[in-house]
Amino acid sequence: MKSSLEDTLISAIRNIPDYPKPGIMFRDITTLLGNARAYRRAIDELVHPYAGSKIDKIAGIEARGFILGGAMAHQLSSGFIPIRKKGKLPHETVRVAYSLEYGLDEMEMHKDAVVPGEKVILVDDLIATGGTAEGAVKLLRQMGADIVAACFVIDLPELGGRAKLEALDVPVRTLVAFEGH
Amino acid sequence: MKSSLEDTLISAIRNIPDYPKPGIMFRDITTLLGNARAYRRAIDELVHPYAGSKIDKIAGIEARGFILGGAMAHQLSSGFIPIRKKGKLPHETVRVAYSLEYGLDEMEMHKDAVVPGEKVILVDDLIATGGTAEGAVKLLRQMGADIVAACFVIDLPELGGRAKLEALDVPVRTLVAFEGH
Repeated sequence: MKSSLEDTLISAIRNIPDYPKPGIMFRDITTLLGNARAYRRAIDELVHPYAGSKIDKIAGIEARGFILGGAMAHQLSSGFIPIRKKGKLPHETVRVAYSLEYGLDEMEMHKDAVVPGEKVILVDDLIATGGTAEGAVKLLRQMGADIVAACFVIDLPELGGRAKLEALDVPVRTLVAFEGH
Repeated sequence: MKSSLEDTLISAIRNIPDYPKPGIMFRDITTLLGNARAYRRAIDELVHPYAGSKIDKIAGIEARGFILGGAMAHQLSSGFIPIRKKGKLPHETVRVAYSLEYGLDEMEMHKDAVVPGEKVILVDDLIATGGTAEGAVKLLRQMGADIVAACFVIDLPELGGRAKLEALDVPVRTLVAFEGH
């Protein structure tokens, strides 16, 4: 049985059939973000387990992870780390290649964004195959981060992302799950 | 005389000379975002005048406006609207061209992101010439938004962005100002 929170979040997410290509059901989180009550509940639920803990930084994956991560960082009195597509950060970076559904891309983080040993939570809106999140985990660990958890609003468990992160000893926290792609 | 808040924020911003081209002093906000105390104070100061008011939505400009706007929306119990580079939003959009320092680009917003009459605050990290913010104001007003204010952490007043928005009857709120470009 789904909880009231899950119902609230699922009904606030827009489903767009055949986007970005035929056969794919796109889970559009912009309607959830625009729904003040659903957005507030999602953020409160994401940060809930860490209230009272010392979390040094929230690392958000560009671009939707910036929205959630910005709110989580403020709520937990943490700093925020942007993990960006290559070429967007102005200072010295570390870079990693990661696999997308349609090929490879690269992401970057500032080298001085993490002090070794800092407790970091990674966040993005959705986890599918986990390729992007795995790349972010590599960047954070390369700079010495202690990754406390990776958080996502939406899980697509059939695509295996959660299992991929858990195999890297990263605890995964998601709020709702959808079947299929 | 600068206030303690201004000192805190200015000392948390990294200055990168000759980026992205010779003669430009880039104001890098990532060090402020990563500094938990400075980030918290910046967000608290941005939302302070609106605490207790009904703000329906915070509209954040991709990508750094997403971080600040995500936090502001949660803090004010508002929804969040992403204003994105073209081709990134999955549903029906309105689009506007805007001028950048090096040419033109286009930005988009979902058509249903605003209900006419809703009170909206626009946010980005920095205002320079104001071309991007002016484009965002056009999109929001096209869909009937009542723009309460445009907020930025950094103002570069010599570049005229604030004056451009004020000429459109948009109240502008900034936290720190730097001379030059």
